[in-house]
Amino acid sequence: MKITILKDQLNESISHVSKAISSRTTIPILTGIKIDAHANGVTLTASDTDISIQSFTPNQIGNDMIIEVFKPGSVVLPSKFFVEIIRKLPAQKIEIEVKDRFQTIIRSGSSEIQIMGLDPEEYPLLPQIEESKKITIPSNLLKDLIKQTTFAVSTNESTPILTGVLWHINENRLKFIACDRHRLATREITIESDSLQNFHNTVISGRTLNELHKILPDQNNLIDIVISDNQVLFKIHSILFYTRILDGTYPDTSKLIPESFQTDLVVPTKELADAIDRAYLLSREDKTNIVKMIMHEDESLEISSSSSELGKVTEQIKLKHIAGELLRISFNSKYMLDALKVMDSDHIRIGFTGAMHPIIIKPEEDTSILQLILPYRTTN
Amino acid sequence: MKITILKDQLNESISHVSKAISSRTTIPILTGIKIDAHANGVTLTASDTDISIQSFTPNQIGNDMIIEVFKPGSVVLPSKFFVEIIRKLPAQKIEIEVKDRFQTIIRSGSSEIQIMGLDPEEYPLLPQIEESKKITIPSNLLKDLIKQTTFAVSTNESTPILTGVLWHINENRLKFIACDRHRLATREITIESDSLQNFHNTVISGRTLNELHKILPDQNNLIDIVISDNQVLFKIHSILFYTRILDGTYPDTSKLIPESFQTDLVVPTKELADAIDRAYLLSREDKTNIVKMIMHEDESLEISSSSSELGKVTEQIKLKHIAGELLRISFNSKYMLDALKVMDSDHIRIGFTGAMHPIIIKPEEDTSILQLILPYRTTN
Repeated sequence: MKITILKDQLNESISHVSKAISSRTTIPILTGIKIDAHANGVTLTASDTDISIQSFTPNQIGNDMIIEVFKPGSVVLPSKFFVEIIRKLPAQKIEIEVKDRFQTIIRSGSSEIQIMGLDPEEYPLLPQIEESKKITIPSNLLKDLIKQTTFAVSTNESTPILTGVLWHINENRLKFIACDRHRLATREITIESDSLQNFHNTVISGRTLNELHKILPDQNNLIDIVISDNQVLFKIHSILFYTRILDGTYPDTSKLIPESFQTDLVVPTKELADAIDRAYLLSREDKTNIVKMIMHEDESLEISSSSSELGKVTEQIKLKHIAGELLRISFNSKYMLDALKVMDSDHIRIGFTGAMHPIIIKPEEDTSILQLILPYRTTN
Repeated sequence: MKITILKDQLNESISHVSKAISSRTTIPILTGIKIDAHANGVTLTASDTDISIQSFTPNQIGNDMIIEVFKPGSVVLPSKFFVEIIRKLPAQKIEIEVKDRFQTIIRSGSSEIQIMGLDPEEYPLLPQIEESKKITIPSNLLKDLIKQTTFAVSTNESTPILTGVLWHINENRLKFIACDRHRLATREITIESDSLQNFHNTVISGRTLNELHKILPDQNNLIDIVISDNQVLFKIHSILFYTRILDGTYPDTSKLIPESFQTDLVVPTKELADAIDRAYLLSREDKTNIVKMIMHEDESLEISSSSSELGKVTEQIKLKHIAGELLRISFNSKYMLDALKVMDSDHIRIGFTGAMHPIIIKPEEDTSILQLILPYRTTN
């Protein structure tokens, strides 16, 4: 293999695939980035077995020559050193030449780097995925779905299925569900129903979706999502992002959500979030995160937390609306802050069915987002 | 004590003193910030016994009322929670009221915070320093002196004196010296000689100087420095920064610096730093940081490093000037990078007295900065 490639484009391609490099892998070849030079460009591949990312750079972009391939070929280079040294090379033009036993010479300006490469034949093949089962979602909408749910996945590896987000299909509705036994986050969208016919419920790791979120563009470019029995492929421009589907059956969470409420509040979102944030600061010092909410006759809400060592925080919020029984309820303030952070509406609606039952949080007018938090049992 | 104070000014004052708060202190009262409200304003104090910082906010700045003191008094509040909660209060106007047993109520908008305060009488007194021994240095020049030397102090606590920077006086010259047995950094300035007459050699902890560097303004405001037998006080606007002088005798480093050189190079600074940085990347992987320098007949310099596992980096640099014997010499690339980073001249002069003797680095035309690095003994 012998090529020249421009530094900025190589760095961009490296930055995409490097999200799949794990420093903790036990498979030596996966500490590397695979480089394939072929007639029409250069493909980089990185994988940690859960996620595999491939990024293609064409020889020419518009009128700009990016790559010259003198001799096609492949090599795997140790990623940590490769990524750092490419970023620091002195000239835009970089020559990469693979010699005997995958010894690789990188030249740029007056620098010459020799790297011991690895045999690309040892690099695992990417999954072959049939293109028949495919859905298409605008990138910015997919980012919203991820942001509004993924924070609620379980971090406890003893129930692996809960570390993932369920992609649930119901007629022409696609719903993301994340749940960690203490809280639940869902976001639903409508998509063209014929594209959903071959599509089954699928669970994808929350960590994977967070990495995908970093690569997805903020614009409404359409992202093709191809699903096989055990793999999903996201096609993002010149990037292919593969991930495996989590094994197991996701629990039925639909029964957790009450049909009707004893108490219904409408609260200004930012004011509530700021008040809970201050109460959280104190509750965190006691390592409990417990914050108490008390509804008053005068349509106000009292938020408070106390610590035997430090003191007490008390906050008052004027409600926009209250109906039903006045409650005192305690909850994990960190969970409530996570839920409020992803609400993009000025006011939110909170529904209660008693002090020991799930708290339901939704935007005031919108039903596509629903967050659930289990309250704490407290003595008063 | 009862006051109102504006949030922005209180936060600014907190940000100054919080640099002296140590999370590892064993003295409970020092985990707090002391607040003193008196007729003309509010003083905050924090201390970790090595450093003490006091910041004064006056009642009025220009025509703006900042503070109203309804009842003078003092209290010590736990710093971590106090610092965080003040930053997040909802309104600009903050009321602080100290009640029985130092219970403190903070009110802002619809928030009310109760904090268990501590008795200010238990807070250690700041050192009393006589104003007679005083020197004055422009702030930006003092920052340069700190930046160009402090990185070279020892981090090894077994020789405490070397963890400090020596302020050395010779006639009307003030020189900062830092040394960790492998390298030495010095920077010298001229100051008015009569202000130096009462001034003795003084050693101040490198960590302290780094904290001071963060508080010093970038402009050329004059900073008064008052020196007593065991304390130094820096006066920065409304901030008083106290630190103790390190005990012990600083070693005489003057004999380390050769009078004349066998080899003398002039090299472009940035090109050399970039080349060594790339060689460092590889040497770091082997945990040695060893980089080799070879001088060639054609007035070029070869910089290289190699790792048995990863490969080799080779760099060529054209010299501006070379005189004397052609040498091969190895050194710690991290130390060389630290030294080059604080050189503000386009070219530097490097002097050698053989492959086993100290390497001396200076700006091409300026003798006020001098860096010394001991070479490594290597087999070739």
